[in-house]
Amino acid sequence: MAEKHYENAMKALHECMEACNYCFDSCLKEDDVKMMAGCIRLDRECADMCGYLEAAISRNSPYISELASVCAKICDDCAEECAKHDHDHCQKCAEACRKCAEECRKIA
Amino acid sequence: MAEKHYENAMKALHECMEACNYCFDSCLKEDDVKMMAGCIRLDRECADMCGYLEAAISRNSPYISELASVCAKICDDCAEECAKHDHDHCQKCAEACRKCAEECRKIA
Amino acid sequence: MAEKHYENAMKALHECMEACNYCFDSCLKEDDVKMMAGCIRLDRECADMCGYLEAAISRNSPYISELASVCAKICDDCAEECAKHDHDHCQKCAEACRKCAEECRKIA
Amino acid sequence: MAEKHYENAMKALHECMEACNYCFDSCLKEDDVKMMAGCIRLDRECADMCGYLEAAISRNSPYISELASVCAKICDDCAEECAKHDHDHCQKCAEACRKCAEECRKIA
Repeated sequence: MAEKHYENAMKALHECMEACNYCFDSCLKEDDVKMMAGCIRLDRECADMCGYLEAAISRNSPYISELASVCAKICDDCAEECAKHDHDHCQKCAEACRKCAEECRKIA
Repeated sequence: MAEKHYENAMKALHECMEACNYCFDSCLKEDDVKMMAGCIRLDRECADMCGYLEAAISRNSPYISELASVCAKICDDCAEECAKHDHDHCQKCAEACRKCAEECRKIA
Repeated sequence: MAEKHYENAMKALHECMEACNYCFDSCLKEDDVKMMAGCIRLDRECADMCGYLEAAISRNSPYISELASVCAKICDDCAEECAKHDHDHCQKCAEACRKCAEECRKIA
Repeated sequence: MAEKHYENAMKALHECMEACNYCFDSCLKEDDVKMMAGCIRLDRECADMCGYLEAAISRNSPYISELASVCAKICDDCAEECAKHDHDHCQKCAEACRKCAEECRKIA
């Protein structure tokens, strides 16, 4: 429903929200949860912001650009943290975050 | 990323969130906004709840069933209100809400 | 629970979220809803962002500063729009938004 | 701004949201994060739902009762989990959750 202009961003945001929340859940089930603490924290930050921005875009918010700029930063940080861990859910999350950061910068 | 079991629900929730927020934005631009007041209110309720449930499913929340039950009710009400209006955005929103209500009941 | 440093901001954000949502509800019940369309839209934007930032502060988010900067801008815009209308709920909302914008700038 | 009827619930929800998010942050900093995994998960569930219900009450949502019923259940579970741990943040969170569950049941 969102304008064509935002189609790629909407897709990337949605996949990033899902990947971050899946990673959050998976990190909490790992043997070494302590090692994943930074990842758990950033997964929540990133999933929440991506979900927030998705909703903002779909309601034609006047603040898409400002929110996308913050979201890109959060995605960058989450990608960097997740990339440190070998778990499949972390590697996939890092990849989703990188793509999303890129799309966010295009609309920021 | 969400489990197979929830795939249809995730898709329906996402489309419903987008349709409701698009309808919210469009209703605010109509000539007769007063006639759309009920629609505007329910569009926000429904979009917010669908977005909330999407996030809950993707983080493997223990409360998917309870939330889906509330969401189905909100979708039903929003579908009923939107169906009263001829605007294309309302008719499409009603359809998205009906599908979403159905999927929510399957996972409730 | 949030650190002392954020106490005033938390209070202002909470009061602003409540004032904006009360104004949203009240605008939808006014006789001339069309005149309130801009207010309704910004009330939602502002209430959602204030609620988001409150939660972010309380979980010690690393992004409080960036989010507060966006929130200040949204509060400014909502204050400006609400101030145009004589309704008591709009005037009170404008005042809550102005206070909140000020507190947000302190932590941005 | 919310109606008198909901004043106690609003206060309890807000304190519970803050206590849960503070506990979430504190659990992630504990030595034994693994032992806190259940707490971390429920803190997020509970904080998010309390914040959602606060917003719903303040916008005069037609679904306060249904949401309060789900929120009471989540608060009960979070109180039970937090009560198992001796950390001050867990004990305070358990207390806030118990109070909030009680207030939610009054408006459910």
